[in-house]
Amino acid sequence: MPKPRTNIQRLKAYAPGEQPRPGGRPVVKLNTNECPEPPSPKAVAALTQVQAEALRVYPPPLADGFRQAAAQLHGVEPGQVIATNGGDELLRLVITAYCTPGSRGGIGVTTPSYSLYPVLAAIHDTPVHAVDRGEQFELPGDLAQRWNDAGCQVAMLVNPHAPTGLLAGVEVLRDIAEAFDGLLLIDEAYADFATTNALTLVRDGVDNVLLLRSMSKGYGLAGLRFGYGLGPASVIQALDKARDSYNTDIVSQRVAAAALADQGYARGVWQRVVAERTALTEALRGRGFQVIDSQSNFVLCTPPQQVPAAGADKPDARTLYARLKERGILVRYFDQPRLDDKLRITVGTPQQNNALLEALDELM
Amino acid sequence: MPKPRTNIQRLKAYAPGEQPRPGGRPVVKLNTNECPEPPSPKAVAALTQVQAEALRVYPPPLADGFRQAAAQLHGVEPGQVIATNGGDELLRLVITAYCTPGSRGGIGVTTPSYSLYPVLAAIHDTPVHAVDRGEQFELPGDLAQRWNDAGCQVAMLVNPHAPTGLLAGVEVLRDIAEAFDGLLLIDEAYADFATTNALTLVRDGVDNVLLLRSMSKGYGLAGLRFGYGLGPASVIQALDKARDSYNTDIVSQRVAAAALADQGYARGVWQRVVAERTALTEALRGRGFQVIDSQSNFVLCTPPQQVPAAGADKPDARTLYARLKERGILVRYFDQPRLDDKLRITVGTPQQNNALLEALDELM
Repeated sequence: MPKPRTNIQRLKAYAPGEQPRPGGRPVVKLNTNECPEPPSPKAVAALTQVQAEALRVYPPPLADGFRQAAAQLHGVEPGQVIATNGGDELLRLVITAYCTPGSRGGIGVTTPSYSLYPVLAAIHDTPVHAVDRGEQFELPGDLAQRWNDAGCQVAMLVNPHAPTGLLAGVEVLRDIAEAFDGLLLIDEAYADFATTNALTLVRDGVDNVLLLRSMSKGYGLAGLRFGYGLGPASVIQALDKARDSYNTDIVSQRVAAAALADQGYARGVWQRVVAERTALTEALRGRGFQVIDSQSNFVLCTPPQQVPAAGADKPDARTLYARLKERGILVRYFDQPRLDDKLRITVGTPQQNNALLEALDELM
Repeated sequence: MPKPRTNIQRLKAYAPGEQPRPGGRPVVKLNTNECPEPPSPKAVAALTQVQAEALRVYPPPLADGFRQAAAQLHGVEPGQVIATNGGDELLRLVITAYCTPGSRGGIGVTTPSYSLYPVLAAIHDTPVHAVDRGEQFELPGDLAQRWNDAGCQVAMLVNPHAPTGLLAGVEVLRDIAEAFDGLLLIDEAYADFATTNALTLVRDGVDNVLLLRSMSKGYGLAGLRFGYGLGPASVIQALDKARDSYNTDIVSQRVAAAALADQGYARGVWQRVVAERTALTEALRGRGFQVIDSQSNFVLCTPPQQVPAAGADKPDARTLYARLKERGILVRYFDQPRLDDKLRITVGTPQQNNALLEALDELM
């Protein structure tokens, strides 16, 4: 029997957040950062308008229509855009195109961060150089230097940061990019909910910055698997060589383009999510939780039991997670250092957030 | 500016067959082996029935519904099925999981064959060991031994063969699998149009055979990007570790499952394609072409000019390709040894095939 590569044999696969079973009991799902509102009706209409003939033939391999829509929206050239099968594919393409397997170097990350980065590195058999974030989860001042010392060919920085929701400003990112010798991927999966983003670095022609954008969060299209990259044309060309030749299908190309074109709808969604995030943050603080100010569509919070002098008799994070789950409310618990006393809660609809708060009141 | 890996810099990307520009003049498109008939109306209905809520949330990461449908159809366990973003993704996953970059070994293929195989190998920086097919494009008797001598970890064999349409029988494939030390991927992208396939090897538990199936050809869903693998559960598990965590989207999962379930419709399409293939083969032979008997949805033919003592004054393959294109008829011309005197023509609708034949009559 043929054996997979050693790194694949050893690999512990990425664990996606729990998904309720189809047809199971209804749950309040606040664990995987989906958008609380549905996608634009225009995006749904684009789906139903796909004809049999469009399914029959191969899709445009470069997703030209989508690239043009994204380029126009962001004020860049179509050659600075790559469409991918979810943002995750862009992460893989960057590693494939820029990291030499088995060599020193590899991928720079910060800890904690998106747990898929090290999994993708392990699949590629490339090392990960993780730099701990500071006491308040801030970026260390010597981050780029430490990545350089390790020989990183690529670095991945999620901003707003997951799972804290903290936002690094664009000038901080510019300094990191300038100091870093490799390709800096800024993962802006959650940028739609933030006050700023790093688009200006791409527009300014910074030659080692690639932005990741996702339709999963801000556009309510997690089911569609569509993301894209914005960066220098030379980087996009390298990624284009590394991708599967028809990596996105005709349905998702059209639906994603329609969603992107309906900015009025999207902005309304983002405003409501931000307003709910503020309300949820205050409501949790009112119940003794420590909550980090988030620029994303989730909040990271510490239950009162683990806040000094606040509620030693109350249930801890792990217990709260389990008790909420019993009540049909899913939030995210990370059993890892610095996070195992916290819960990451996706901002839901007002109704979902109220259900969460009522359940917390009963449990504490 | 960060530089891509040397193998990516050197890479000549895969060239998909020409696609007509959207909104351009109508063409008779017989160059990329799409199905001449549209997908099942039930598949199209499954598309239009996708609700906004299904788009909003992440899809089932394992595509459970599709795996069950495929397992039931083929008489295997769901754990023996993997759903992929086009059959091309399955090819990549096999290389990712089984071939160690930079090492001896790599991928065994036959020549000529699907031109994507060496491109995927180059992206992964793994060598390709190509064994020439015989005089009549038959498989060499010592094929497995030669792959073994080269240390191949994986071999890829498209059957029915592209671009000839020749079919190797299942007992021949069983012997190759038994003699080969690595994982044998049998690419059955065109198996729906053939009299036999290698499913029995998977059902019999042969531990190093993986079948690739595609929804692009036999089910008229090239635009959807959906394929799947059938093989031993241990191989499927290794591939599952190597894939992007949400590699297929909810729309394509549902549409593909609906298409697979409508076997009555699919079988009707296959029968009509096979009947048209026979008619086209005879019509071409009647015009002095040499045509290989095909078990696929295309035929490989040699124009009379290049058939000894048939038509030295007639246009050659390259000229015919160009003249047909001027008339809005696209066929495939491969500018490579053993194929540069031939044309590969996809079996179209009766109307498309007649348009082709009429154009050929004018040109010769």
